[in-house]
Amino acid sequence: MVEATGMDLADGRLQTPCLLLDEGRLRANVARMRAHLDRLGVALRPHLKTAKSLDVARIALADPAGPATVSTLREAEYFAAGGVRDILYAVGIAPAKLPRVLAIRAGGADLAVVLDSLEQARAVAEAARAAGDPLPALIEVDADGHRSGVSPDDADTLVALGRCLAEGGAALRGVLLHAGDSYALSEPGALIAAAQAERDAGVRAAGILREAGLPCPVVSVGSTPTARFARDLSGITEMRAGVFMFGDLFQAGVGSVAQEDIAVSVLATVIGHQRAKGWIVTDAGWMALSRDRGTARQRVDQGYGVACDLAGTPYPDLIVADANQEHGIVALRRGSGAALPDLPVGARLRILPNHACATGAQHDRYHVLGGDGRVRAVWPRINGW
Amino acid sequence: MVEATGMDLADGRLQTPCLLLDEGRLRANVARMRAHLDRLGVALRPHLKTAKSLDVARIALADPAGPATVSTLREAEYFAAGGVRDILYAVGIAPAKLPRVLAIRAGGADLAVVLDSLEQARAVAEAARAAGDPLPALIEVDADGHRSGVSPDDADTLVALGRCLAEGGAALRGVLLHAGDSYALSEPGALIAAAQAERDAGVRAAGILREAGLPCPVVSVGSTPTARFARDLSGITEMRAGVFMFGDLFQAGVGSVAQEDIAVSVLATVIGHQRAKGWIVTDAGWMALSRDRGTARQRVDQGYGVACDLAGTPYPDLIVADANQEHGIVALRRGSGAALPDLPVGARLRILPNHACATGAQHDRYHVLGGDGRVRAVWPRINGW
Repeated sequence: MVEATGMDLADGRLQTPCLLLDEGRLRANVARMRAHLDRLGVALRPHLKTAKSLDVARIALADPAGPATVSTLREAEYFAAGGVRDILYAVGIAPAKLPRVLAIRAGGADLAVVLDSLEQARAVAEAARAAGDPLPALIEVDADGHRSGVSPDDADTLVALGRCLAEGGAALRGVLLHAGDSYALSEPGALIAAAQAERDAGVRAAGILREAGLPCPVVSVGSTPTARFARDLSGITEMRAGVFMFGDLFQAGVGSVAQEDIAVSVLATVIGHQRAKGWIVTDAGWMALSRDRGTARQRVDQGYGVACDLAGTPYPDLIVADANQEHGIVALRRGSGAALPDLPVGARLRILPNHACATGAQHDRYHVLGGDGRVRAVWPRINGW
Repeated sequence: MVEATGMDLADGRLQTPCLLLDEGRLRANVARMRAHLDRLGVALRPHLKTAKSLDVARIALADPAGPATVSTLREAEYFAAGGVRDILYAVGIAPAKLPRVLAIRAGGADLAVVLDSLEQARAVAEAARAAGDPLPALIEVDADGHRSGVSPDDADTLVALGRCLAEGGAALRGVLLHAGDSYALSEPGALIAAAQAERDAGVRAAGILREAGLPCPVVSVGSTPTARFARDLSGITEMRAGVFMFGDLFQAGVGSVAQEDIAVSVLATVIGHQRAKGWIVTDAGWMALSRDRGTARQRVDQGYGVACDLAGTPYPDLIVADANQEHGIVALRRGSGAALPDLPVGARLRILPNHACATGAQHDRYHVLGGDGRVRAVWPRINGW
């Protein structure tokens, strides 16, 4: 792939498909979230699982040392090597990963882990004792039945986990919640309630630990929807959110990011037509867009993405109606009365993705758009574990 | 990631999630397809878009020089650098990609392109003339209305494309068809008919070109289902298929690969439970499995994959019922009377994927299983464009 910068998006040296990142929108999305959380008096611990890029992290983090959230130990290693010091690995720890966690900590990063079972707490405490390193762990608390975590009403388990950690040689750093069911919502009232419920469950769980004489310095909540719709975060010390930086059609469907603020898109080239069917065939199939069809369950099904011109303006009713591995089939929404734009072979378009985390993972770099619509930089990103 | 070999799948040094490849099954799948096509008297041009690995290519290709099929120019560059000489890039060519195509050819590989429009044919001919390289192109013919291609009954367009290439400085190498609608079938009779229709359309289009005095040495057809169910390939010179090497649950649903022959799986570790709900939470979410839910439209919906023990035997009715980015939720199929297996935190399981192409793309290497169930090698794979 040609890596020269300064090209406009029609320049053939820019090979397609590729992932574009609008730096201005990224910066605006970060500033908006930071201002919102500043008003609520809560620190932002950006989740770097969407971007997986040090260049993006430098924009998303208020301080280059963190705090930050990651979803894999590969991310933890990469961001620690890049200077991030305060890292939370927000996926339940597998005991076999503890040697890697301890190695990252020995390198100077304050990496914390998450757990919700006694088996994990015992393994963490044992590893901490053996290493002579009071490995910090947060207890995952289940905000809404979405996934993992101890019920905030299960005081016995919360206290047992806390004691196992604090008395076993590890450090009890606090509680962590993720209101993942908020992704299924789209009414502001319900989203505000989900954010409030996440906050309330966190405060309740922290209270149980503190009443038992255990430390709970951190009460960590977050998801992009609950971050966006939180009205009261009293008792919460930090908010984790990641996809808000880029936005995507799914988050636009939820209402947590406006479609016009979406900062990532996939640049595609027209490679053919089936004119009788109204199909424009491009070189951006699901390999470039991801298999994510999250908007299929929303009010507006965006297919595999919304087709835009090179300036980023959506064509009326034009979506990626279907996708094969390296072919995208761009067509008008069913029932649309709009005219199919004239996009001959070789013409280019930009596709707004359903899910920035999934689309990003299909790529190993960002082509960064400056305010003049030209590629001003190429930023690498990582994948894998 | 620790890259030592000789480990069994429970060994904690093998970090999860990771992609396993059963070498014995891979070799058997390749041998079975080769024997089938030998009986039909047609060459196999393996599609390397699923594997994207030189180590796998060495098993799949009868001759290290090819023939082979690729879906991206990045694959073409990678396999050409690895010694494959006869390569077909089976996605409609974008004019801006021609300099890269010519550079690969200048490096010694016989790379052919595909097209279905006069704009493309003119661009190919012009690039061939300018380079003094009779760039070979195949005309894509639409076997079944699935995607791209000229109708096999549109003699005027077929001949016009052929003349534009052959008289313009490029080489007309033949016709290419892909019966992609076969993926939606599952009855053997319908699959046999789809294979026959693909063959018939190819022979018809080739006849039109030859009657017009144009060369058509290659008549290339293929998809894993039509390769598997073809009964008569007279007039066809080569079969393209790729996913058959690995197999997956989607192909098992079609009936083109048996579930017990699936050669790829994702190794996952249990990181928690929600016992009241019957959930086993693992560290293999959609990032490791892909977002592909292709089996959702089949008779048996396999969720995000089928859960197996470390020997590769499926647990009764146990599937990945839901997935977040780095969390898999393993549960019994709805309505199942089977018992949930006892898989404590730290236990491991293997997940058979819905779609080998999509799951493979989430990984940058294969952990290769030998006959003793141990990791005998780590093979890199590529992604990107």
